[in-house]
Amino acid sequence: MSQPEPRPAQPQVSHRGRSNAPVATSNAEGEDSPEFEPFNALSPRGFPPLKEYLDIWDVNMLSRPDEINKQEHHTDLFSNSLLIVRRGQEFQLRITFDRAYNPSKDQFLVEFVIGTSPQVSKGTYMPVFLDPDRQGQWRGRVVDSIDNIVTVGITPAPDCIVGKFRMYVAVLTPYGIRRTRRDPSKDLYILFNPWVSDDTVFLDNEEELREYILNESGIVYHGEANDISARPWNFGQFEYGILDACLYVMDKALMPITNRGDPIKVARKASAALNSRDDDGVLVGNWSGDYTYGVAPTSWTGSVEILLTYASSQQPVCYAQCWVYAAVFNTFLRCLGIPARVVTNFYSAHDNDGNLKTDIILNDEGKVDRARTKDSIWNYHCWNECYMSRPDLPTGFGGWQAVDATPQETSDGLYRCGPASVHAIKHGEICYPFDAPFVFAEVNSDVVFYERNKSGSMQVAKVNRSHVGRKILTKAIGRDEPAEITSLYKFQEGTDEERTVTEKADGYGMTRQKDTSAQADVHLELLAQEVRVGDDFQLTLEFKNNSGSRHTVNAYVNGYVVYYTGVTSDEVQFKTLKVTVEPWQSQRVAVDVRSKDYLSKLVEQASLHFIVSGRLDEGSQIVSAMRVITLHAPKLTIKVTGVPRVSEEMFVTVEFTNPFQFNLENVFLRVEGPGLMAPKTKHYSLISSNSPLTWTEPFTPRRPGRSKLMVTLDCAALRQVYGQVDVNIKP
Amino acid sequence: MSQPEPRPAQPQVSHRGRSNAPVATSNAEGEDSPEFEPFNALSPRGFPPLKEYLDIWDVNMLSRPDEINKQEHHTDLFSNSLLIVRRGQEFQLRITFDRAYNPSKDQFLVEFVIGTSPQVSKGTYMPVFLDPDRQGQWRGRVVDSIDNIVTVGITPAPDCIVGKFRMYVAVLTPYGIRRTRRDPSKDLYILFNPWVSDDTVFLDNEEELREYILNESGIVYHGEANDISARPWNFGQFEYGILDACLYVMDKALMPITNRGDPIKVARKASAALNSRDDDGVLVGNWSGDYTYGVAPTSWTGSVEILLTYASSQQPVCYAQCWVYAAVFNTFLRCLGIPARVVTNFYSAHDNDGNLKTDIILNDEGKVDRARTKDSIWNYHCWNECYMSRPDLPTGFGGWQAVDATPQETSDGLYRCGPASVHAIKHGEICYPFDAPFVFAEVNSDVVFYERNKSGSMQVAKVNRSHVGRKILTKAIGRDEPAEITSLYKFQEGTDEERTVTEKADGYGMTRQKDTSAQADVHLELLAQEVRVGDDFQLTLEFKNNSGSRHTVNAYVNGYVVYYTGVTSDEVQFKTLKVTVEPWQSQRVAVDVRSKDYLSKLVEQASLHFIVSGRLDEGSQIVSAMRVITLHAPKLTIKVTGVPRVSEEMFVTVEFTNPFQFNLENVFLRVEGPGLMAPKTKHYSLISSNSPLTWTEPFTPRRPGRSKLMVTLDCAALRQVYGQVDVNIKP
Repeated sequence: MSQPEPRPAQPQVSHRGRSNAPVATSNAEGEDSPEFEPFNALSPRGFPPLKEYLDIWDVNMLSRPDEINKQEHHTDLFSNSLLIVRRGQEFQLRITFDRAYNPSKDQFLVEFVIGTSPQVSKGTYMPVFLDPDRQGQWRGRVVDSIDNIVTVGITPAPDCIVGKFRMYVAVLTPYGIRRTRRDPSKDLYILFNPWVSDDTVFLDNEEELREYILNESGIVYHGEANDISARPWNFGQFEYGILDACLYVMDKALMPITNRGDPIKVARKASAALNSRDDDGVLVGNWSGDYTYGVAPTSWTGSVEILLTYASSQQPVCYAQCWVYAAVFNTFLRCLGIPARVVTNFYSAHDNDGNLKTDIILNDEGKVDRARTKDSIWNYHCWNECYMSRPDLPTGFGGWQAVDATPQETSDGLYRCGPASVHAIKHGEICYPFDAPFVFAEVNSDVVFYERNKSGSMQVAKVNRSHVGRKILTKAIGRDEPAEITSLYKFQEGTDEERTVTEKADGYGMTRQKDTSAQADVHLELLAQEVRVGDDFQLTLEFKNNSGSRHTVNAYVNGYVVYYTGVTSDEVQFKTLKVTVEPWQSQRVAVDVRSKDYLSKLVEQASLHFIVSGRLDEGSQIVSAMRVITLHAPKLTIKVTGVPRVSEEMFVTVEFTNPFQFNLENVFLRVEGPGLMAPKTKHYSLISSNSPLTWTEPFTPRRPGRSKLMVTLDCAALRQVYGQVDVNIKP
Repeated sequence: MSQPEPRPAQPQVSHRGRSNAPVATSNAEGEDSPEFEPFNALSPRGFPPLKEYLDIWDVNMLSRPDEINKQEHHTDLFSNSLLIVRRGQEFQLRITFDRAYNPSKDQFLVEFVIGTSPQVSKGTYMPVFLDPDRQGQWRGRVVDSIDNIVTVGITPAPDCIVGKFRMYVAVLTPYGIRRTRRDPSKDLYILFNPWVSDDTVFLDNEEELREYILNESGIVYHGEANDISARPWNFGQFEYGILDACLYVMDKALMPITNRGDPIKVARKASAALNSRDDDGVLVGNWSGDYTYGVAPTSWTGSVEILLTYASSQQPVCYAQCWVYAAVFNTFLRCLGIPARVVTNFYSAHDNDGNLKTDIILNDEGKVDRARTKDSIWNYHCWNECYMSRPDLPTGFGGWQAVDATPQETSDGLYRCGPASVHAIKHGEICYPFDAPFVFAEVNSDVVFYERNKSGSMQVAKVNRSHVGRKILTKAIGRDEPAEITSLYKFQEGTDEERTVTEKADGYGMTRQKDTSAQADVHLELLAQEVRVGDDFQLTLEFKNNSGSRHTVNAYVNGYVVYYTGVTSDEVQFKTLKVTVEPWQSQRVAVDVRSKDYLSKLVEQASLHFIVSGRLDEGSQIVSAMRVITLHAPKLTIKVTGVPRVSEEMFVTVEFTNPFQFNLENVFLRVEGPGLMAPKTKHYSLISSNSPLTWTEPFTPRRPGRSKLMVTLDCAALRQVYGQVDVNIKP
């Protein structure tokens, strides 16, 4: 065509002609306000004579953890010497003048500024007046005035921008405004405030706030719905540098400063910014098993190392899978003051772009057609919930909101997800933003077994409505136990309410598969014990005849090694069985599974997936059942020695014995604990078969109270090995 | 920290472990189906004996423009030799066998495949059976069977995927399936079908479909609400290569094939894929005036060159502004069969991230404080509407949907916008997806004048509720005239309905500025005639005293050169006035604006923006008014000579005289016309002051009927010069 010149792929284009100023998207940048701002050009040059006007000697931010501000604002846990307060609640500053303050004569104000090009109407320049008759969006008052020291109380608006502000005290003179020079040690952070009712993140329960804002230790549940594992995690939201790293996440994602007071927009933006897709966000997803150029997702012990690495390298950190995204997202939300928790959905429908069907194709003999079965159901999937009201929606959809930072592969650019009202999902009101249909499908999809005949036509053979979204868990408040929250997402199967929800969702185009298949006379269930990696074990097939006729089942037992994403890696077993069941009787058949058949095929977070399907009496009735068997990794033994007291040296000792017939190579151990020790890593190039290892590290507790040390061991042949130990530090 | 190796910024990670197969996102790729597919491994090797089974000699796609398929499917205008049909409506294929077809004995089916890894349940592999008892989602029947020629009728599902399909005829033998070899000349396109009621894009009005699907010529309105200009545009949706380019746009944006049957998802994805932000989409936005490395936005005559360049270079095309995005988006939508039109909103609130306030800051003398006024109101902004039902929303929100491909600078990653139900916007139901609050703000924002006093505190001085969204236009159906559609977006100012909408939007957090300012006793209006570039003219200030007292106004006249985005480039005038108005009287003051004051400061799409503000009687009442004066560019004269008949050579002659005292340098002329001529460009390095130019080009009409030639002239000193001429070609 007729381009006049060969041109580069996408030249940089300036904002000229497009906007008056570039949009402020950095909390790190910002000009200093002038020390003297004359009222007009006719003012005398230089500083005016100051005899008559207040001179400012010092401003005390009262920012020590034991002083009033951090105590009353629940920010004393932060490892950060600057003032950190929460919006909508008064904090105090102590200003020392050169002489006593005379309210009838002296005029001064306190100014708060964030980002570049600050403006009152954008909430980025907030002048606070102390005169009760002249209050702006942020309120101010003189608390007391003793000699030349004035204590002022400042109440930021309950919807103000969240981030790091610059502070100035400004004195009005007839010639102009004279203000303090900017001093970075007097910068302050303003956070969301779930303790005050005017904030949209208000949560009226002190016990919940202790968990969802203040608790740095967490548990992420994984495994299988009937065989749950609990992985400890150090959220570390109060650790040194984390608050700055969380603000950097928004800066890097070019989030306009003016949007940062809205928890809906903050949560939505962060769901995109936590993953590296599109925007060079925090974490690179990798499920491939090859983690050569980074840290294996199973190896992390907490969020601290990840966020600090991201903030210092300014590059995405390698690597994450769903629980890493969820755990780091949780740190981000709690750090900024949005109540948050990690939830785990067992059997999560995914990668099917929010439709309500996960398809399993059987051939005309009843065997799984692996080539045509492309959908997968994740054994579990972790996401987050954050707590806030939803003024953008009709009333009733506030409360917990699902947000998800794991990038979804098949969806239409859905590298962000939520916030979606959990209440709206439960009631099938999925027409409201953001991404409610997607979350609805994750917990409500049907598993549809199709039978495909030779000429290529397909029929629905069976619909399993209860497999997906079997159980949804989060850590209980104040205890290291799971709390089941399935009922927040869905009504009980078979109830009237559930039917109403199905109809409503159907009205919004989320149509469930009609189950036209006949209920088979024989019901099949798969049973197994808890299995450790390397065990031989039995899978028991229980056929239950619910009819008065004798039946014969020709069954196929398909056993696969699967990733936790439900993706099949390799076949471990294929067996045909013929079973006869007498009327109204049960018949059990045991299938032996030997470690030598699966051990060499294991991929990370190994689980075995069995699908048994078959035909009844060589007729049209299909019998089928699925079972995921998670393989339990060996545990770490962790001991702590020394006097548990602040600033006294202690020692942690990790013990592990390789239980296998083979060597473990290239093994990483990692340990950390909130308030106890920063993340430490140890590398072993080899742990021989049946050999023990012992690793001892010193640490010095930084603050008193209950805390935990969390340890992982990780290598290509063995993932999800971890342990934790409780420590109670005396002051 | 403890990364074991230095690592690249973001290593490529495979889909292994994450999904069974990469998601199909390319309509260009796809394996050929095997010519023989045995039923099981025990079949004889090689092809079975064919004596008894049908052998396929030929398949006729009946794809000539004058044959039944393209005629009945309204696709005869496409310059494309392949079959193009619309979903939910029968088309015919003619299959020639080696012998007569015997329905009781012979079994064959027709298969349609799109993308890689085709699957019935994903809609990417559609087998069509001709047996009435065995119909799938796509229906099939034998229309007639004469000798060895069978005509079959195929009806794709009305919600099927839109794109380019591969076609196979498959014969069933006892040994397996034997199918035709893939022949690219028998590929077919399936499009959306607004002519059938089962399609979500159904539009029940033949006259509207002739405009919104079939019309290749369009008009984009620009200028100022009271002084509208009409720019012709060649959408060219049926031109050679355009349909493939539109499919490529979705491929390049990695849009999953399975989503391409949903017009909501297609429109949403395209709103992102039309701009180069995030995803290397079609057009690079540039408002800076520097277009050295591409084509100036004002220079394009149509969409054809842009889409073909994008598809061949596989790189974003330089450059676009809003009407270019909207016009190319319109081509995309009409080409795929979604009814669409370009709309222009005069005075469009922008770049303020969907809040309802556009702030203008006045200093304490009433003069505009340019340093603190960052918001801008676009003189006009173009977006698109597309017509479809909205099954994802409650009933009542189908019909026209606003979509916008212009990247929004300040919004939270909003490089896509819509579809947002226009009906929902009118009624303030902005809680529904997608991006309704943003569109609502574009047409409903208030202009808020603040008065800022010396100490930095600000007060609302005046609120103008009617400036933004003053007028919304689109081309009328079947005529080259504007049709006003403002009433589709908003109720009349001051009505009860309008108040209800305001309250509803307020409930969703879109709070309008409360107007606490007193209505000033004196009303000010600014009047001007139509102005051509280079004219001296008068701006008339009409002060109207609505009170029984005499008033004096101290007014500031601020005149600026502004971009069409409302961004100020330079000051052209600043004047103070003192006017006295007698009770109940009017007083006019004329201000002279001379071309020498603005001509050297002009930026592209020059307009002059006057803000007059002042104080009444030196009291608190503020008088203010705004006026945008667009500068009309000189016109082109276009003549056509020759016999207007298909395939006969004709000539177009473009004439222009440089009316200025200065030379025009580096001038580009461009001409094209749907069905008449492909885009042609001519470059003149210099047109001297007051000199004429004449450019003649031959062309050969390709098809009969009414059409247009559109011409632009463009150079840095003079933009938006264009013309058009109607041509009626005889067969």
